[in-house]
Parts: sequence; C-alpha cells; structure tokens
Amino acid sequence: MKTEVNENALIASLAASLPRSPLQLNNLQESDAEFITLPGSITLALTTDTIAEEIASGLYADPWLAGWMAVMANFSDLAAVGADPLGILLAETIPPLFPVEARMKLQQGIREACVACASYVLGGDTNAGDALQITGTAVGCITDGRPLTRISIHPGDLLFTTGRLGIGNAFAAAGLMGDRSSFPDYHPCARLRQGRRLRSLAAACMDTSDGALATLDQLARLNGVGFTLVPDWENLLDPACRELGPALGIPPWVFLAGPHGEFELFFTLPAETSRDRLDELSSQIEGCVFVGRATEGAGIHLPGVGRFSPDDLAIIRNLDTPRRGEVSRYLQNLLEIGHRAEIGH
Amino acid sequence: MKTEVNENALIASLAASLPRSPLQLNNLQESDAEFITLPGSITLALTTDTIAEEIASGLYADPWLAGWMAVMANFSDLAAVGADPLGILLAETIPPLFPVEARMKLQQGIREACVACASYVLGGDTNAGDALQITGTAVGCITDGRPLTRISIHPGDLLFTTGRLGIGNAFAAAGLMGDRSSFPDYHPCARLRQGRRLRSLAAACMDTSDGALATLDQLARLNGVGFTLVPDWENLLDPACRELGPALGIPPWVFLAGPHGEFELFFTLPAETSRDRLDELSSQIEGCVFVGRATEGAGIHLPGVGRFSPDDLAIIRNLDTPRRGEVSRYLQNLLEIGHRAEIGH
Repeated sequence: MKTEVNENALIASLAASLPRSPLQLNNLQESDAEFITLPGSITLALTTDTIAEEIASGLYADPWLAGWMAVMANFSDLAAVGADPLGILLAETIPPLFPVEARMKLQQGIREACVACASYVLGGDTNAGDALQITGTAVGCITDGRPLTRISIHPGDLLFTTGRLGIGNAFAAAGLMGDRSSFPDYHPCARLRQGRRLRSLAAACMDTSDGALATLDQLARLNGVGFTLVPDWENLLDPACRELGPALGIPPWVFLAGPHGEFELFFTLPAETSRDRLDELSSQIEGCVFVGRATEGAGIHLPGVGRFSPDDLAIIRNLDTPRRGEVSRYLQNLLEIGHRAEIGH
Repeated sequence: MKTEVNENALIASLAASLPRSPLQLNNLQESDAEFITLPGSITLALTTDTIAEEIASGLYADPWLAGWMAVMANFSDLAAVGADPLGILLAETIPPLFPVEARMKLQQGIREACVACASYVLGGDTNAGDALQITGTAVGCITDGRPLTRISIHPGDLLFTTGRLGIGNAFAAAGLMGDRSSFPDYHPCARLRQGRRLRSLAAACMDTSDGALATLDQLARLNGVGFTLVPDWENLLDPACRELGPALGIPPWVFLAGPHGEFELFFTLPAETSRDRLDELSSQIEGCVFVGRATEGAGIHLPGVGRFSPDDLAIIRNLDTPRRGEVSRYLQNLLEIGHRAEIGH
C-alpha cells in the first residue's frame, strides 16, 4: 500500500471543502505562495507561516531568532516564486510574563530580518497566550510576467541549488543534542535576489525550508519524476554538517533528510539547456551549484547511500519533528530507513 | 496624570523601531486595515487578526464559531475601509488530540463565513500546539478611489451605526455567566456591502469589534473630539441586551462598554450634510441608525449615565478581558467607573 505524506493529505482534506477563488492562479501545493491576479496584469503573491513548534521544542530559545525566522520563512516563500516583497503582517501571541528584554530581542530579530530583505512590517496583531508563537503573512507582487511554480520538471532536467544545504538540520541537531554554541550566528537569509532572477530563467523552483529531501520529494511527486544526485553530493553540504556529523554520529545524508531546512532554493532547467546558457546562469545566480538530474523512475537516488522510494520518503516526512530528548529515537528511525535504501529497492 | 490606553501604547512601542514602507498609505492606528499602493491606482487593504483569547476563555467553545469569527473579524476590518475582499489566509494551531469532528466543525465555520462574504480561503498553514488558535490575514483591494479611514471627524459631525449594538457583549455575558443557550445562533456578519457604499459617502469609519465604547474612544482620540449619544441611545442596543440585562443585573450601558464587540460599523458625516443627503444615505445603507454627534469637548456622553472622560475610557479599555469566573469582578470595576461618570466630571 502506498504511504501518503501526512501533510499533503491534511492540506488536501482541509482544502477539499473550500471553494477556490476564480482569481487564484495556482492549484493546491503547486507553488510556495498563493497567486491572485489583479487588474493591470499584476500578480499578488501571498503566503503565511507560523513559528510555533520550533519555539515549543526549544530550538528557537533565542527570541531574536524566533523573530528573524518568522519573517524569513515567509519571505523565503516569496523568493521561491520570484516575487518582490511588499511587506509582512505579524500576529504575535505573547505569554503574560514574557520578559521585556526578550520582547525587545524578538522585535530586533523581526526588524533585522526586514532590513536584510529590504522590506517592511505593514501591520499586525498581538494576543496573550500560554506559549510564544508568531504568524507572519508576507505579501509580494510581480508586475512583469508569470510567477515561478513547482511545476514543469521532466526527466533529464537539470537540478540546482542557490547554496549549500543542511545547515538548518545541523543547527537543529546541535541545538537539540546540546551543543548550540557551535552556531553563534545562525541566521539564514531568504534568497529574494536569486528568486527574482530565476523567475525568467528557471522552469521550477521551491525553497528548502522543510529540508532538502522533503523538498525534492515534493517536487518529484508534483511532477511525476524522481531525482538522482551528483556522485559527490556530500560537497553540497554546508561545512558545519561535515564538522558536526562525525562528532554527533550523524551520517551526511541525514542533514538532507531532517525536517529543519534552510532558505536555499532548488530550481530546475530543461535538459536541453545549452552550455552557454548554463554559464550565463552561474554568473547571474549567486552561489548556484549543480545538484543532479530529474529521472523517469520515482524516488531519490543518493549515490553511495541508495535509492529512497516514494514510500521511504513519505515515512521520513511523516516522522514526528523531534523535541529535545527525542532526537536519538528520531535518528534511529531515519537510519533504519537509510539502511533499507542502502540494501536497495 | 493622563491614563494611556495599553493597547495603543503597545502598538506604538512595537512600531517605533520599525521603518515604515514608502508604499504604505496609512499612519499607525488611523485605519482598520493597512493600505499599500500598487501600480495602476490599485490600493491593497491588508489586515491580520488572531482568535486565541476568546477560545482560551471558553467564550468560543464551539469550534464552528471559532472558525466563523476568525474569518469575519478580518473581513470586518476590510468592510470598515470599504475594500472588496480578495480572500483570506489562515494559520491554524491545532492541539494534537483535537477531535476530528471538532476539526470538521471548525472548517465548516470557516467555509460558511467565506460563503457569507462571497470570498475565499486562499491558503494557509497548520501547526501543532497546546491550545487551538487561528490567525487570519485578509486581503482586499480598492480599484476606484481612496479607502475609508478613522480620520476626519470634526465637532458637530453626525455619527451613525450600520446596526444595533451590544450583541457581542451580550453573547459574552451569557456565555461566561452560564446561559449561552439564549444565543443558539450567534454569528455576526462583516458589513462588507455597507462598507463598500460608505467609502464614497462617509467621512470616517471603524468597526465595533472591540466594543462600541472602545471604538468611539479610539475615534475620539484620533480626531481630537468627543461624542455625545442620542438621549434614547438604549434603543440602539440589540434586543438581546434588553432581555439579558435585567436577568443578569447588567445595566444597558455595560453592553456598549464591554470588550467583545460585534461587526457593525460606526461612521460619520460632516455636520453640514443636507437633509436630502441623509435621506439618500438611509436608503442606501442597510440598517443605518443615527447615534449622536461629535463634540469639541473630549470624552463620551451617554445621556442618563454621565460623561466618561478619556481617563475613564482608558481605564475601561485597560481592564483585563474577563474569563469564566472573573466576570463579576470585571462588572464591579465597570460599574464603579460608571458611578464616577454619573456623579459627573
């Protein structure tokens, strides 16, 4: 029996009973943001993302980081569709006894993330509640053409990333396994500049915020393809992973498989893209690295580890996000799936 | 010493450190939604509102109502600025053991509120958390002119409402004091149709979602005026208040003073508006009733009760929103302030 991805099934069931706006351009799950057409060929890009579980798990114990990530997670979705951010609205739930200094740090994280993205807080809402949580809703626009989506990947197409992968999971592993000091300045940035350029260059795009493997699996499912990564895919990992992995007993591929991603963009180009075009691209898209190719066969092939079937990938994506103290069980589960991939199917 | 309204002070302090977008039309607190100018003389209206405290207090024990209110509270802000809703994004935090039937009721409330407003859910995010809460972010647009704001009220101006007031507080009183059965079908509607028409007719507008008195106080502060209500202001109350008040020992004015409002719109017209224009208005704006006049002197005068000074009103607005079991203390506080107003100042 096919294993469903719980999150996809949940989104589909929530949306099933809701009529869709005739002005909405995208279908369900086909893009990192929602698109609404306005008069004058303006496309509005909208996205909402809550930072709650990462705070509850202790991962974002620093309120500065919680504020930063609440802004960046949303702007990263705008980056993935190639939209210019108009700004963000923030709904903050603050516990009654939240210290004033912590609140100031939270606001500072929000402000610095907006400055880094050359964007603005447009408005918000504040509420009292038992646990700190922040919901951002980012608004972007596209005035000169179509937005980027996750759709239009064919076997043979070329897969790239805007930067090194795995730092999000490395930060989570270090934080939840007790050595956060190795990440004194973790503050990933939304790739807005790259996304804006990719809009006229790339065929499809998606950010890695749910982890690299989950992102590739989602792209694979939506397009009926698989992916095979380059033989030296370990070089795609952020150096932090290569330092942390041996120290914590975490094999390299786990930094791609964990659920705490970063804000790089995966994007694809048609198989027939010329050498000249590729050279042009690598000069235009900062940090861009070749990752692999789309394949006719389903699943994701990591040379040296094995082929993860769609079922393996669904099981990985359905694992509960680990909290402090639960990481070893989570790792154990991942490693078992990796072992199955290794012995091949 | 002047008493500040805590919420206004909080918003001002949060915004103080944040640079403002050059595309944002409105100043802080001057409108129920945020305005962004787009090319082609389109104005985007944006607003975000979280339903959390009303769920935690037990007031929205019915998940259908929580869903309905999460949508309506946001669309009501669009109504108050005269925008056409393009849709809403919803971020839902759901406890792990939330029953499936409750979840379905929540979705049904969301769906029915969207249908009632002829609008749509555009997208969303779901998270796990200890307490149910829902953040909505509504997006509207105005393609033919300026949005309505809370600004431009002068002494002598005429004050109206789009409907009877106090039902929100009556529902809260009944629910928290134990007799919710008298409200089997509480589901207030955003006044989108009225707001759209008022955009070309009214000088200023604000919804009553924080309670009628708080709304008038906010309009008064922003415009440097006061208000005096019509002598028979009790007739402005929803019949439910007049039934419930004597049964629960709640004087009529308390239904205006409590913090749980409804989605009516207060709006003003210039003092010199002609009789003909007023007749035209009352035929165009469904349910519209004359409430009183703006005054040069600050505060709000309720004939038969007294004059509430800005300090009284700040103290009322700063009272903690009552939870079940705390209502009598809240009422006691309100009644003391009312007594002060009665003996005059």
